[in-house]
Amino acid sequence: MTTRLLATLAVTACGLPAAADEGMWLFTNPPLKQLLDKYKFTPPAGWLDHLQKSCVRFPGGSGSFVSADGLVMTNHHVAADTLQKLSDLKKVDYLKLGFLAKTRADEMNCPDLELYNLREIKDVTADVNGAVKPDMAAADAFKARQQKIGEIEKAASDEGKGVRGQVVTLYAGGLYHLYTYRLYKDIRLVFAPEKQAAFYGGDPDNFEYPRYDLDCTFFRVYEDDKPLKPDHHLTWSENGSKADELVFVAGHPGRTSRQNTLAELEYLRDTGFPSLMQRLNRMEVLIGAWIGRSEKNRQLGEDDLFGIQNSRKARYGGLQGLLDPKVMARKQAEEKRLKDYIVGMQKEGRKLPDWHAGAMTAFDTIAAAQKKRAEYAQEYGTLEQGTAFNSTLFGYARALLRYSAESKKEAKDRLPEFGDARLPALKRQLLSEVPTDDDYEILKLADSLTLLAGTYGAEDPLTKLVLAGKSPRARAFELVSKTKLKELAERTKHFDAKSVPTDDPMVALAAAIDERARAIRKKYEADVDEPKRKAAAALAQARFALDGANAYPDATFSLRLAVGTVSGFKENGKDVPPYTDFAGLYARAKEQGNAGPFKLPKRFEERKTALDLKTPYNFVCTNDIIGGNSGSPVVNAKGEVVGLIFDGTIQSLVWDFVYDDSDARSVAVDSRGIIEAMRKVYDAGRVADEITGAKKK
Amino acid sequence: MTTRLLATLAVTACGLPAAADEGMWLFTNPPLKQLLDKYKFTPPAGWLDHLQKSCVRFPGGSGSFVSADGLVMTNHHVAADTLQKLSDLKKVDYLKLGFLAKTRADEMNCPDLELYNLREIKDVTADVNGAVKPDMAAADAFKARQQKIGEIEKAASDEGKGVRGQVVTLYAGGLYHLYTYRLYKDIRLVFAPEKQAAFYGGDPDNFEYPRYDLDCTFFRVYEDDKPLKPDHHLTWSENGSKADELVFVAGHPGRTSRQNTLAELEYLRDTGFPSLMQRLNRMEVLIGAWIGRSEKNRQLGEDDLFGIQNSRKARYGGLQGLLDPKVMARKQAEEKRLKDYIVGMQKEGRKLPDWHAGAMTAFDTIAAAQKKRAEYAQEYGTLEQGTAFNSTLFGYARALLRYSAESKKEAKDRLPEFGDARLPALKRQLLSEVPTDDDYEILKLADSLTLLAGTYGAEDPLTKLVLAGKSPRARAFELVSKTKLKELAERTKHFDAKSVPTDDPMVALAAAIDERARAIRKKYEADVDEPKRKAAAALAQARFALDGANAYPDATFSLRLAVGTVSGFKENGKDVPPYTDFAGLYARAKEQGNAGPFKLPKRFEERKTALDLKTPYNFVCTNDIIGGNSGSPVVNAKGEVVGLIFDGTIQSLVWDFVYDDSDARSVAVDSRGIIEAMRKVYDAGRVADEITGAKKK
Repeated sequence: MTTRLLATLAVTACGLPAAADEGMWLFTNPPLKQLLDKYKFTPPAGWLDHLQKSCVRFPGGSGSFVSADGLVMTNHHVAADTLQKLSDLKKVDYLKLGFLAKTRADEMNCPDLELYNLREIKDVTADVNGAVKPDMAAADAFKARQQKIGEIEKAASDEGKGVRGQVVTLYAGGLYHLYTYRLYKDIRLVFAPEKQAAFYGGDPDNFEYPRYDLDCTFFRVYEDDKPLKPDHHLTWSENGSKADELVFVAGHPGRTSRQNTLAELEYLRDTGFPSLMQRLNRMEVLIGAWIGRSEKNRQLGEDDLFGIQNSRKARYGGLQGLLDPKVMARKQAEEKRLKDYIVGMQKEGRKLPDWHAGAMTAFDTIAAAQKKRAEYAQEYGTLEQGTAFNSTLFGYARALLRYSAESKKEAKDRLPEFGDARLPALKRQLLSEVPTDDDYEILKLADSLTLLAGTYGAEDPLTKLVLAGKSPRARAFELVSKTKLKELAERTKHFDAKSVPTDDPMVALAAAIDERARAIRKKYEADVDEPKRKAAAALAQARFALDGANAYPDATFSLRLAVGTVSGFKENGKDVPPYTDFAGLYARAKEQGNAGPFKLPKRFEERKTALDLKTPYNFVCTNDIIGGNSGSPVVNAKGEVVGLIFDGTIQSLVWDFVYDDSDARSVAVDSRGIIEAMRKVYDAGRVADEITGAKKK
Repeated sequence: MTTRLLATLAVTACGLPAAADEGMWLFTNPPLKQLLDKYKFTPPAGWLDHLQKSCVRFPGGSGSFVSADGLVMTNHHVAADTLQKLSDLKKVDYLKLGFLAKTRADEMNCPDLELYNLREIKDVTADVNGAVKPDMAAADAFKARQQKIGEIEKAASDEGKGVRGQVVTLYAGGLYHLYTYRLYKDIRLVFAPEKQAAFYGGDPDNFEYPRYDLDCTFFRVYEDDKPLKPDHHLTWSENGSKADELVFVAGHPGRTSRQNTLAELEYLRDTGFPSLMQRLNRMEVLIGAWIGRSEKNRQLGEDDLFGIQNSRKARYGGLQGLLDPKVMARKQAEEKRLKDYIVGMQKEGRKLPDWHAGAMTAFDTIAAAQKKRAEYAQEYGTLEQGTAFNSTLFGYARALLRYSAESKKEAKDRLPEFGDARLPALKRQLLSEVPTDDDYEILKLADSLTLLAGTYGAEDPLTKLVLAGKSPRARAFELVSKTKLKELAERTKHFDAKSVPTDDPMVALAAAIDERARAIRKKYEADVDEPKRKAAAALAQARFALDGANAYPDATFSLRLAVGTVSGFKENGKDVPPYTDFAGLYARAKEQGNAGPFKLPKRFEERKTALDLKTPYNFVCTNDIIGGNSGSPVVNAKGEVVGLIFDGTIQSLVWDFVYDDSDARSVAVDSRGIIEAMRKVYDAGRVADEITGAKKK
């Protein structure tokens, strides 16, 4: 899950009678009618405000206040970066060992961690659009809006007081909302289990269900060196949830692409995903086999391998969804509804809005762009995205080469990644102090050169140019062993001088293909990206004109509400029940010989008899989530915590594009499992008491 | 290695000044000049005869007599089938535990195992060709030769006396040799280490070097219930080998394709191997992830996974060799030499042989056939080879469907796999008692249907026909859960009646694509196989006319001699020394946390202090081997055993097509390591004494 609920894809709104529990709803526009019709539920006064103000946003994830003393709950994998930094700082491996602050005095300050708490939402659409003069060209209108947004955000912010305003673009510009956050910077670590408990089952169980993961971590927010007393926090449910119960997820879904047209999904289904999967499979096999050969290799390649496995599962799940005709038929029906509306407007003979002409041709334009996308994919991927040059050192060579060339141009003519604002990121990447490993570089580069030869053919002039009369292995060895870009001093010298060592073999290779790489990028941007961008904007306007706020907007990493029920599903004809329990954890370990990713953490082995084995541990529900929702609280109708979102099943991975709950589910840690483990396994009664209110401090 | 040195590819002879130690030489035609020129060595009288008669052939592998009492040495992986059968029979897992017969009385009879000992070689070329009348059509000539071969073999055989004659077709028909074997059927198991010692390092170290494998097993041949006293056996070298020493390998290379033309190698390099690797990578990831999910899955998929990993490594190694321009340049030079000869004959104006016209166009014909091969590959692979239907149950469905149709035809019109002679094999496959597992079947079928959709596109009529409006997962579930072909009784009923249950959903699927599958097969055979077969035959005759017996013939699973030296190599610029020792085994285990494929067998842990850790354990040499050479003895110039071939490095995998020893090597167990382990680890001093002649029994 890690990667998935932390990161994702493109942007825009959703129409048609939503499927079942579909929807990532704005707190300003909750699905009241659906809640009443399907669940006979109407949120009482203050219910939504309380939930909103109890939530916090983490970098890339979600969380919530769960005590009057500022305790914050999120996922272990959301906290992992912070745990890693603390480990480096204190020379203790907290990811491996876990952490418990025995007293408040032991709570450990977390460098660089900032949390956002949403205080206020205001519609600023008229204000933003007011900046646009009637006859402005599109580019000027865009600039005028951006400038106005900057002004609004500045006026709403007060850094000294920890207040930050952010304008969120919803419905691809149909609405602009100003979100005002309270920022917290003194965050301390209270409790984290060891990774082996948090990510029990590792890659084999990732995206699967049943699960047995204690994927939680607790922080505390401090202000003026004292625990924060938040004005809102979630209370803990005494009894947890039960099957078929209505539950809500409040969190920050990152990005969805639910407005992609059928043509785009067909491209992904028939070309994009199959080809990406090939590359992921190839890298997984290559690196997996290599890291098995030595401990050094394992240390170098393990993280890459996990990232690849995670992506591979995610893409495979997404592809399976796109290959489901039922899913695609829903997409088609929705597209027809929008088309009918656009064409219908014309028949009505009334004055047509600006976007209408663009919307009339938008579906065809996007379909044509997908044809170009397929046509360019090989050359664009190989040369510009660099799939044929899978090497950190090649990345350095190209960055230096292009930086040297681009820095001589005027700012407006540069490739965007060499714009002034991006220089710090470029510098960080190029002057990384992490050393490269020759063997690993040769392995990856030789394999990607082999891929190049297999793609173009060994006799193709491009292959011959790149391989220079050698086998991929010999060429990779030559390039990696001879380049001086391994040396930080060498890179620093050239970065500072905006120069490039043209006699370095890796640079010479990057230079040899640069013209061709730039050419395909230019074509790709002109024939694929740009037409799609314009057409999608016209469709977004058409859709907003049709549905307005009756539909939820695509995810924007801002706070949303998802409605659903705790509910099992069928897999290969077999019922998968919604809950797991601790007994299941021990059974899973036993069945797997208590080894590898299924090895029980030592504490769980020792404390088995102390645990009530029937305590619910993980559960699945139908709430509509996506990457960014990691760490979201699951609450019941009373607004009490019953769970903690940490994953989606492999069947849910199509939710990037289309929501469908026939077998897809969100996965959560059960609130009862968290408390039971804290008390019986981790001796963290202090924290459990605070959360459940068993004892006041 | 297992698969590789046991099985392999196509057939034909090799010209040009051979590269270094190239050559799988006939015992009737050893490379005397090369031995003299390069090594100043001339085999003394009787040397070759003694070596030949000391060798035995195993099913799929090689071996040798190593004691006066009929002790036979081969690889553990050659013996694995027999060990498995004994395990089933005795309900003891000998693969896991190993086996030592404490006394001769404990030596364990091996069912079904037969060994061949080559007694005599006779040239019968004139005899075979004499059966062909001057004006016979090619097909009739072929039949006449086959009939004559049958007569010769029958006359040379005396089953009652355990004598069997086999005519070996060399140089694609340039020569016919009658090999007369003595057959032994009473074979008993004497000593086998546990698989964890024999295949130490598992897949990660497979095809790699350095290695630490005790890949040996010892049998004894009995006759009339007494140990055989073979007239020849190899003696054991007291001191083993040393670096750069001349060594010989005598064994049974199975098949090589060294006569493949450049166009064929280019096809494999640019199309065949890259596409096969994609499929292997895909299956490795699919099954690898699945078997990680439960012990049941592991048991079901582990063997498949190992086979896939083994093939993937083999193909990757082969592909790397084909991508080496140096290797291809040698191939090209050799091809030019042959072309020049063929064209030159014409210029000389003398009477041209029958094959000349065919040879003149052969290279172009084969090149054209490769174009067709690339054109047909997708459809042929998907539909006829069934890569889109990776399911045992689909295999049953197609076999029943076609058997029902083919059995109604006259014998000569049937697809070859339904010929009368092949019925026992068909029956064995179709009526296998091994049950299928629904989950595994669904996994593999759903994935291969996904591959079909990715290959043709989801909207293609073929995809739609196959998926029948469902997602690949749902369709696979439907097919697997509903087919009755899971039941042996159902398959037996239809096999016996030569009928087919057309209403079975899996049969209906096989039927729906059968016409199209048969059509592409017919085209493939007509446009690829047949032209290639004819052209290759003409080239083989041209080559034999040019080189005669100065070149060695392609491998034919008959006894050959390979010459080379013990010698390390360079990998990524680093020297890899030729020998490993026991100290290296313990270091490797330690470095790998003594886990998984690197876990030390318990015996090795316990006996570490008893071992002389500096004893050489494995070594590499340059001798030219291929699948089938597994178990071949490595002997020194005195004909004494210094090692036991068990693998080739990944760089040697191009030897299927071209020999090159710049970095490719054969891998052997050192004779000293075998004895040291027997004495100190396995308490097998009885066997070690017998082998080394330390004590007479």
